[in-house]
Amino acid sequence: MRVPNPVTPALELTGSSEPQPSRPSHLRQVNARALLRLIREHNPCSKAELVRLSGLSAPTVSSAVSHLATLGLIEHLGEGESSGGRPPEMLRFHAGHGHVAGVDIGGTRLRMVLADLNGRIVTQWAHQFTEKERTPRAVCDLILEGLRCCCQEIGGSMRKVLHLTAGAPGITNVETGVVVSAPNLTDWNGVPLRAMLEERLDLPVSVENDTNLAAVGEHWRGSAKGVANFVFIAMGTGVGAGIFLLDRLHHGANWSAGEIGYMSVEGQPREPLRIRAVGQLERIIGGLAIEKEWHRLLAKRGRTTDAALRRLRASEVFDLAAEGDRLAREVVQYTARILAHSISELSLVLDPEMVILGGGVGSHAELCRATDKLLSENEFGRPALRQSSLGPQAQLHGAISVSLSASEMKLLS
Amino acid sequence: MRVPNPVTPALELTGSSEPQPSRPSHLRQVNARALLRLIREHNPCSKAELVRLSGLSAPTVSSAVSHLATLGLIEHLGEGESSGGRPPEMLRFHAGHGHVAGVDIGGTRLRMVLADLNGRIVTQWAHQFTEKERTPRAVCDLILEGLRCCCQEIGGSMRKVLHLTAGAPGITNVETGVVVSAPNLTDWNGVPLRAMLEERLDLPVSVENDTNLAAVGEHWRGSAKGVANFVFIAMGTGVGAGIFLLDRLHHGANWSAGEIGYMSVEGQPREPLRIRAVGQLERIIGGLAIEKEWHRLLAKRGRTTDAALRRLRASEVFDLAAEGDRLAREVVQYTARILAHSISELSLVLDPEMVILGGGVGSHAELCRATDKLLSENEFGRPALRQSSLGPQAQLHGAISVSLSASEMKLLS
Repeated sequence: MRVPNPVTPALELTGSSEPQPSRPSHLRQVNARALLRLIREHNPCSKAELVRLSGLSAPTVSSAVSHLATLGLIEHLGEGESSGGRPPEMLRFHAGHGHVAGVDIGGTRLRMVLADLNGRIVTQWAHQFTEKERTPRAVCDLILEGLRCCCQEIGGSMRKVLHLTAGAPGITNVETGVVVSAPNLTDWNGVPLRAMLEERLDLPVSVENDTNLAAVGEHWRGSAKGVANFVFIAMGTGVGAGIFLLDRLHHGANWSAGEIGYMSVEGQPREPLRIRAVGQLERIIGGLAIEKEWHRLLAKRGRTTDAALRRLRASEVFDLAAEGDRLAREVVQYTARILAHSISELSLVLDPEMVILGGGVGSHAELCRATDKLLSENEFGRPALRQSSLGPQAQLHGAISVSLSASEMKLLS
Repeated sequence: MRVPNPVTPALELTGSSEPQPSRPSHLRQVNARALLRLIREHNPCSKAELVRLSGLSAPTVSSAVSHLATLGLIEHLGEGESSGGRPPEMLRFHAGHGHVAGVDIGGTRLRMVLADLNGRIVTQWAHQFTEKERTPRAVCDLILEGLRCCCQEIGGSMRKVLHLTAGAPGITNVETGVVVSAPNLTDWNGVPLRAMLEERLDLPVSVENDTNLAAVGEHWRGSAKGVANFVFIAMGTGVGAGIFLLDRLHHGANWSAGEIGYMSVEGQPREPLRIRAVGQLERIIGGLAIEKEWHRLLAKRGRTTDAALRRLRASEVFDLAAEGDRLAREVVQYTARILAHSISELSLVLDPEMVILGGGVGSHAELCRATDKLLSENEFGRPALRQSSLGPQAQLHGAISVSLSASEMKLLS
């Protein structure tokens, strides 16, 4: 597996045959880090391969490998396949040396995953909020509880958790670790989430907007793998976007880039942007709005007597459309028309290579197909449209990716 | 003055006391380029200052300075002010060693400037198009004529022009040098403008969208100096935007980032994006649309008998509004309301630090004030709003900046 979002350049000393005399301990550190990265990228591999890949001398590699083994970061795997001579001894990154955690604070539930240092998810945990549990303090307490459960589940210690990344459903200042506003929760305005969590958990924490994390996830191991410039649109209860430019998240000057849930909708009056209010686009094509439109159409056609139909969630209405139900197809068209228009508008600004539709409602194939058909009427402002391949797990994968990047630098310190 | 948009890092060899033995000619070149850059940044300066600024040894600096003088790139200025000892010999970049050209292909006229290698404009030329002259071939012929006139004007040779950059009013592929579409000209679809110009002029040419060039100009020496992330909005006959992210132009996947002239307007029907058509926003608040709205209001209030009023251009209507004319103020409000809404929408995508209003209509103080007032109703999506400080010259400054960057690498080759 490739290590996500590299923090340091791939190799700082390629080509030079030996560390130079100045600051040897720093150079040893640089070499060890570079070799660890190579082992993680080419897992498992032999010392000979490391010499070839790094350009470092065999004694330097041997010394660094011993150092990494002492730290518990690599394991000797025994002999690999020989290509003629003596079979090489294989080395493997010890992915169980530590763990990283990812948390998604949703509007209705809290989810957590624990992953090894290869990013492989080893256990997960979820909790449905009661009304009282949606406050910042209660959520932080629940995260501590969840982390304890996860560690217990795998029989590991909390001290082995190197980093936790939490996604919040609102505008989030990544630098200060403060959630500026999350209208779908209770009393989430100016919440110092990072500080609150670090105090409770006693480990380093990152916080990020949930949709941004989903974009990171899709870029790491989802539909946007290898795509430098794309927009991830999440549609569930809320509507928002995560924007990737030149392989990096674009946060904007005030952490509100991608807040497309506040964009205006054709036929609706213009309104000033209020940070604690639910935005216009979200009010019109968020999950609840789609269900409202479905009820309106049911009433119009006199089909409200069917309680099962009335209870359908937005994505189930889309399922029904896929089966050919005409009324349900009207709902898909209604949603797709407004969504396609918003994608056109944002494409006139950004001209992204790709737009990915995600979230519980947005990732539905039926919606994707209908939206793409409408976008194809454009001669330009027509990015490639893809369904999220990670679905509702995208945020969690993104959180793991951020935690891995953050912990990478600390592995050798 | 500072050299714009550096192509090479400021100094590749800071700190090392002497060039290393390997590839000496390459290192001499690197040193010479680094020193030339320092001289241009600290113009004029002494050899002692160069030694201090570069970290190179005195003999290395002396040798490079001799080389640069031989090439005609620097001049000895005589003695500077002494700080006690022997007065230092001062060196100056020879800005007249060559020239660079910038061209703006407008909807109604062609403009050209010639600048020295410090970016100081030394002469300019303009030509009002006849209807027949708006075709690609005629425009290229006119650019050749303009360049000849400019060179004649300053008594210089065309061979001393190192680079020309032309801005076109439409979607432009900077890599291939092709103008994809320019609806306000005649037959400008898929025009290989760079190749056509290089053939006629026999010098290297860059092409770029005109609004993007204006953004480059504002970033170089206008309202966006030192601002890494901003949007420049040009409003004249056309409406478009140039987007700067991390101090670089953002072009988008299909060269159509910032084509906000095609954005939709409240109360207007959604329409598919047609590349050869004039966009909806441009049709509603472009210069001609503003004048149409003015005529409509004049007719409504029975003021059409006043021929002088009927003849006013958009910016003159805004002048009248500044003087307190109520009808003219209605036009400003009408324009500002739609413009503010578009800025809100694009801010929900990008969240830029700053938006600059430029172009013959857009840079009017009255419009800027009214738009800012409307934007201030937003709690977020409210970037700092500034008037263009370069006005209609912004594109030409941007073209000079691009030409300077492009020619910089060639000065020493």
